[in-house]
Amino acid sequence: MKNDQTTKPCSAILLISCPDRKGLVAAITEFISSNNGNIIHLDQHVDFQQNVFFSRFEWDVEGFRISRENIAAAFSPLAEAYNMQWELSFSDYVPRMAVFVSTQTHCLYDVLSRYRSGEWNAEIPFIISNHEEAQSIAYKFNINYHVFPINPSNRQQQEAKQLNMLRDANIDLIVLCRYMQILSEDFVKEFTNRIINIHHSFLPAFPGAKPYHSAYSRGVKIIGATSHYVTTELDAGPIIEQDIIRVSHKNSIQDFIRKGKDLEKIVLARAIWYHLSNKILVYNNKTVIFE
Amino acid sequence: MKNDQTTKPCSAILLISCPDRKGLVAAITEFISSNNGNIIHLDQHVDFQQNVFFSRFEWDVEGFRISRENIAAAFSPLAEAYNMQWELSFSDYVPRMAVFVSTQTHCLYDVLSRYRSGEWNAEIPFIISNHEEAQSIAYKFNINYHVFPINPSNRQQQEAKQLNMLRDANIDLIVLCRYMQILSEDFVKEFTNRIINIHHSFLPAFPGAKPYHSAYSRGVKIIGATSHYVTTELDAGPIIEQDIIRVSHKNSIQDFIRKGKDLEKIVLARAIWYHLSNKILVYNNKTVIFE
Amino acid sequence: MKNDQTTKPCSAILLISCPDRKGLVAAITEFISSNNGNIIHLDQHVDFQQNVFFSRFEWDVEGFRISRENIAAAFSPLAEAYNMQWELSFSDYVPRMAVFVSTQTHCLYDVLSRYRSGEWNAEIPFIISNHEEAQSIAYKFNINYHVFPINPSNRQQQEAKQLNMLRDANIDLIVLCRYMQILSEDFVKEFTNRIINIHHSFLPAFPGAKPYHSAYSRGVKIIGATSHYVTTELDAGPIIEQDIIRVSHKNSIQDFIRKGKDLEKIVLARAIWYHLSNKILVYNNKTVIFE
Amino acid sequence: MKNDQTTKPCSAILLISCPDRKGLVAAITEFISSNNGNIIHLDQHVDFQQNVFFSRFEWDVEGFRISRENIAAAFSPLAEAYNMQWELSFSDYVPRMAVFVSTQTHCLYDVLSRYRSGEWNAEIPFIISNHEEAQSIAYKFNINYHVFPINPSNRQQQEAKQLNMLRDANIDLIVLCRYMQILSEDFVKEFTNRIINIHHSFLPAFPGAKPYHSAYSRGVKIIGATSHYVTTELDAGPIIEQDIIRVSHKNSIQDFIRKGKDLEKIVLARAIWYHLSNKILVYNNKTVIFE
Repeated sequence: MKNDQTTKPCSAILLISCPDRKGLVAAITEFISSNNGNIIHLDQHVDFQQNVFFSRFEWDVEGFRISRENIAAAFSPLAEAYNMQWELSFSDYVPRMAVFVSTQTHCLYDVLSRYRSGEWNAEIPFIISNHEEAQSIAYKFNINYHVFPINPSNRQQQEAKQLNMLRDANIDLIVLCRYMQILSEDFVKEFTNRIINIHHSFLPAFPGAKPYHSAYSRGVKIIGATSHYVTTELDAGPIIEQDIIRVSHKNSIQDFIRKGKDLEKIVLARAIWYHLSNKILVYNNKTVIFE
Repeated sequence: MKNDQTTKPCSAILLISCPDRKGLVAAITEFISSNNGNIIHLDQHVDFQQNVFFSRFEWDVEGFRISRENIAAAFSPLAEAYNMQWELSFSDYVPRMAVFVSTQTHCLYDVLSRYRSGEWNAEIPFIISNHEEAQSIAYKFNINYHVFPINPSNRQQQEAKQLNMLRDANIDLIVLCRYMQILSEDFVKEFTNRIINIHHSFLPAFPGAKPYHSAYSRGVKIIGATSHYVTTELDAGPIIEQDIIRVSHKNSIQDFIRKGKDLEKIVLARAIWYHLSNKILVYNNKTVIFE
Repeated sequence: MKNDQTTKPCSAILLISCPDRKGLVAAITEFISSNNGNIIHLDQHVDFQQNVFFSRFEWDVEGFRISRENIAAAFSPLAEAYNMQWELSFSDYVPRMAVFVSTQTHCLYDVLSRYRSGEWNAEIPFIISNHEEAQSIAYKFNINYHVFPINPSNRQQQEAKQLNMLRDANIDLIVLCRYMQILSEDFVKEFTNRIINIHHSFLPAFPGAKPYHSAYSRGVKIIGATSHYVTTELDAGPIIEQDIIRVSHKNSIQDFIRKGKDLEKIVLARAIWYHLSNKILVYNNKTVIFE
Repeated sequence: MKNDQTTKPCSAILLISCPDRKGLVAAITEFISSNNGNIIHLDQHVDFQQNVFFSRFEWDVEGFRISRENIAAAFSPLAEAYNMQWELSFSDYVPRMAVFVSTQTHCLYDVLSRYRSGEWNAEIPFIISNHEEAQSIAYKFNINYHVFPINPSNRQQQEAKQLNMLRDANIDLIVLCRYMQILSEDFVKEFTNRIINIHHSFLPAFPGAKPYHSAYSRGVKIIGATSHYVTTELDAGPIIEQDIIRVSHKNSIQDFIRKGKDLEKIVLARAIWYHLSNKILVYNNKTVIFE
């Protein structure tokens, strides 16, 4: 068994964004409280520039007077009244996560180690790659590994096959562990805000290829890594997490890469954790993270 | 004029802690919303270990149906019903802050520079010191400076005089800018959670005197600074903020001190800012900081 | 093959500490240069408090006029003249590293992943544990795993067996990946400055058991991890590396542990890397790290 | 008296860069040692990509057999033989530093506070500004303040006057404390690697105007500041120091600015300290910082 999920009480989680109005929090908390829901976490944020209200409510399902199948329907009238965009999830649902990798394997090792340690509430049915390099790692961790070699002429067909596989497996989240192919617009749109990428620079500095080399020649004193949702514009999607480490003139490009790998692992892992914990709202190409 | 406070709309701020119960947030937001209050910020936190609810509500005074003199009275029944500890403040009140200093002046310079730049919503009527060293700095910044030389035999009388001066000036907050005297129990109790100290180590490591020297001989790779409320136990009060910087074998004790000074300035300034913004709740010798 | 070591040119590395005297650097560089050695890295440091000179010289073996077997003998007279403590190593030697683990496996996963990725110049012949938990991980990574259950009555015998195994395998470095047993004085002395431990706090804060719990109840705003050489005094050995991460009132003990695990992995891995790269000198219970 | 410089022993400092060759360190240390010089600090670095050798030698002038006036001449033949670019300075020389400011005063306050506290080995004869705002601060700190209002039509003349004033005062270093004018090419060239600017972003991200606003709309999770030498290309000069701080969705642009100000102060102050301590070498639009 992957983790102790089954012994934890199940909670319902509502992620909401809508135009800010008086009485919003009162109305939502009233909906939960009057149905005997015990709020465990309430996070809210108002963007005063955009006049948008964001919130995350988490409450015990046990004892709640509305059965879990009926919560969405019961909440709908309120959601409509306030013009909400909202998403309801339950903490005992196990999201299904596909991992994409190319030839760099440090992030893959880290993701699979966390997975096998039970750090995450997720199921990884398979790994997809455009290379065979990581096959043996998948084997170590006992996970299916599918190779889709990609070149300019077969890209479209291969993506189509990948999409079929993702749909068949009911994949909720795609994690790009240093997957070095640019996904097509259609692919990205089918998984809006459900593809997490790790970029090995402190975005928006050094987008695109070879960021460590660019950082080295610019002579920066700090390097970084950025995890973000993939959009159709390269390395320009909503940023989920960033972190940095100091470098100096003593560091070669190889040192930049070595230090950066550790950043990449952590920055990607944090993004996955936030996503799996239903703690991220996307708005205006930015993220609200309810830590 | 020190800042643009007068042109900002005034808001009311409620800091609340109480035993956690269902319906708490709903009840408080209902109190505000039903009186036509527009909530600007709502932060809440539940400590599940202690079953304690903490929150900070901030709402526009303008348009609120209860006049500001009557808010406290109107809120009292609710507060009693839920057994709340609470504090009401208004953003247009200018807290009165006394600064204590000994011979190290970097924090004093920083505090006075921020004050004169209008960074803080505060009034500093005077500086108190046990030495004359910083007199000329007070003069530069046009602030009264009172010297109370302290030795074991006169400590009690000098503290009594200081207390009178603080009471006469209606001081809300005392900031110890590297003030190297231990305050008596009575003094501390009169200003519970209203004396902020900066300690030049990463507490609980290296409490007491000469922390940089201790850090140097222990061979740590990171040094820190800690701002905290003063309690009767030395360097053991509720921590407000901490920060760190890397050191290496190349750094002498003088380097530790030089690097540490910058930390001290920033860590103290952040604590003052949180306090002046009514963003701190103290519970169980710990702080809840509503950032 | 584990890495590309064989294709890299081999270099000789001298780690030296001795009383500081005029002409030291000149004498050593002269020894290397006059024998046609090309210095790749020269790091030196003087502790003026202790008047001790530390340095690390790395030069190409290729073209050096003294054959590698004879370098030590050729250097000895100089070393004696300056009263040096010194150590000579070659970059093509592959250190042999034993890993100890108990039931927490995140550091083990990380160490083995780095090992299998070829990040380190090392050979791991086996893992030793006092529990069976990590057996399946060792199996995934195809490394021998030996269980030595330990209780007060069998401790001495089990340690004796472990020592035999370590000697038989010519182990150079022992890495304690959250190994929750205190090693005896004799054990530690046999591997002076060759046992690296990871402690899950920012030492000297919170030594001993349950540091995350202590950090949580103290209400710190930052937690840390510390890698150090093991000495006979618990958690008091020479610190190799430390790092930290912010926490807040919103974080539970479980969050502290989750965030801390990532720190532990990185802080341990950096220490191992420094050690394997012959970049650490120990003096006076402190480390000089030639980054 | 500004600091305890006069009581410290004077040291000579050589900053050297040249093509890397065998025997370089030996030759230079020999020059110092054979003349009875006691090396206090020796830092060296080789850029293997460019095959360039960088070093900083610091030794006691007392007891050195060559008098300080003659050191340069005595060193010249060696410098020529190795094709060195080099600079000789003495620790008892007090560099003359001009400060430029516009309307933002936080960096100015910080620089002047450090100056008056004796943190730096420098003399500040005057402040130059294109506005009157900071006049009263200069007055507080008892430093001359010269206003040069600048508009497109008078820029050239005003710069000419500024240059005259800088030459007359033998200015060694110009510090731009958020000076919001772009200096002309001629101006910059006269003070190559002697003008330090603070830019309020993590360069190369967000060069140019309003970086905090750009960072806010991009939704970054970390903001930064960068100090660099000014070159003729805007915000593209050699980076001296960078630092960062976390931000979140809860932070407004005003919070970005407030947090960023503290970064700017520290990042600028560190750069000034490195420069005044003769610890910076510039090569290929990058800096080598001998910390």
